[in-house]
Amino acid sequence: MAKPLILVTNDDGITAPGLRSLIHIMNEIGDVVVVAPDSPQSGMGHAITISDTLYCKKEKIDDGPQKEYSISGTPADCVKFAVKEILHKKPDLCVSGINHGANSSINVIYSGTMSAAVEAGLEGIKSIGFSLLDYSWDADFTACKDYILKISLNLLKEKKENLILNVNFPSNTDKFKGIKVCRQAKGYWEDTYDKRTSPLGKEYYWLTGNFVTLEENKETDEWALSQGYVSVVPISYDMTSHKDIDKVKNWNLN
Amino acid sequence: MAKPLILVTNDDGITAPGLRSLIHIMNEIGDVVVVAPDSPQSGMGHAITISDTLYCKKEKIDDGPQKEYSISGTPADCVKFAVKEILHKKPDLCVSGINHGANSSINVIYSGTMSAAVEAGLEGIKSIGFSLLDYSWDADFTACKDYILKISLNLLKEKKENLILNVNFPSNTDKFKGIKVCRQAKGYWEDTYDKRTSPLGKEYYWLTGNFVTLEENKETDEWALSQGYVSVVPISYDMTSHKDIDKVKNWNLN
Repeated sequence: MAKPLILVTNDDGITAPGLRSLIHIMNEIGDVVVVAPDSPQSGMGHAITISDTLYCKKEKIDDGPQKEYSISGTPADCVKFAVKEILHKKPDLCVSGINHGANSSINVIYSGTMSAAVEAGLEGIKSIGFSLLDYSWDADFTACKDYILKISLNLLKEKKENLILNVNFPSNTDKFKGIKVCRQAKGYWEDTYDKRTSPLGKEYYWLTGNFVTLEENKETDEWALSQGYVSVVPISYDMTSHKDIDKVKNWNLN
Repeated sequence: MAKPLILVTNDDGITAPGLRSLIHIMNEIGDVVVVAPDSPQSGMGHAITISDTLYCKKEKIDDGPQKEYSISGTPADCVKFAVKEILHKKPDLCVSGINHGANSSINVIYSGTMSAAVEAGLEGIKSIGFSLLDYSWDADFTACKDYILKISLNLLKEKKENLILNVNFPSNTDKFKGIKVCRQAKGYWEDTYDKRTSPLGKEYYWLTGNFVTLEENKETDEWALSQGYVSVVPISYDMTSHKDIDKVKNWNLN
């Protein structure tokens, strides 16, 4: 039986250790093509490059069997470009990550990692974004491997062609308790701006902040992660708030 | 009674005619503060600036009563910065646009205009993204005014604190048939890459494409717009695909 064709991408850039780990894992189950940004793209949301040019470069970063390309764009650009200009067809699976840092709760909205997975889903490709709750560049991804294989193999067998999963791993990698399939928790970022002055006297700002969870519900990803479980959230790109349609229809609009 | 405090932003940049029109309309119903990008940010999705510095500049662009600031960031940055560093509180309403070009169907995912509205909603602020199905810089926004006022005044009276609306106007502005409250249509972009060679012989690409509607359902924004109606879609930032949770729970994961 032919091996599945697997597209691997991320938002931390083609040299990120999390991406290299994911490539090595995917090499065990499929024919891997890597199309990843040539520079970090964290916080890029679902940005695409429409006002600038794109460059593509063939890469050889390690001795693995995968083919690799870097793109001067965003994670969503990587998926679009891979399908149209490199693969010339849909892969059987698209995986993004492993992100250095969490993409649970509403972080899915800001996440470049997840934007690649969502773009793949939009194009009718099964996809998964993987993230580890550890921002350090030398994070240990070893314990994620068995879970990544299990989830990916299950998704490859799934009938729904555009199923998208958001998978997050707790930071305490020696104590994963198992997998919880859950929903996105309510939460937000309490923003802070760090105001500084440049050597030439011009004021500038750095955005920082703290994530605030708004619920402790056991059906949410934040709860699962806090208890040491790997969280799996199925993702939709229908942003309609269906429950608000009737409310707005009752306004005096026409 | 005190006038409502209204934050106005967009993704085409602070000098865009669509933004200037929206400012003039909002001046009729509220105290207006404009915080908009200093350069075009189309296609930026929900990007935020976390790996670079932000600059803020006070602006005076016309003789209106509004206060104005430009930000060296994305539409989502503008909302965050406005709330924390300029207003020091939540406005009563955030409006984004009027975008030069459509943000119906899945374009809400790629849209900088809508990312500002979604960011406001996330922060508990009622918000609306307005877009006209005309990409030209000298598009005529006159006919949008009455609809914008009506929708904004209704939203200001609404109890739900984080209601987000995606409003699109058909391009044929002399023939609006009324308002349809609807859901996001299924659709996708058929991408095309225009491959070129630089004067130095390096290959590069421009992303272009055609939007493809996947349904003609009368409950969708694409249908409403095709029939000459103004479309209003309530938006959610819960990206969980709730109907897929049980499906994935039935996989052999633990």
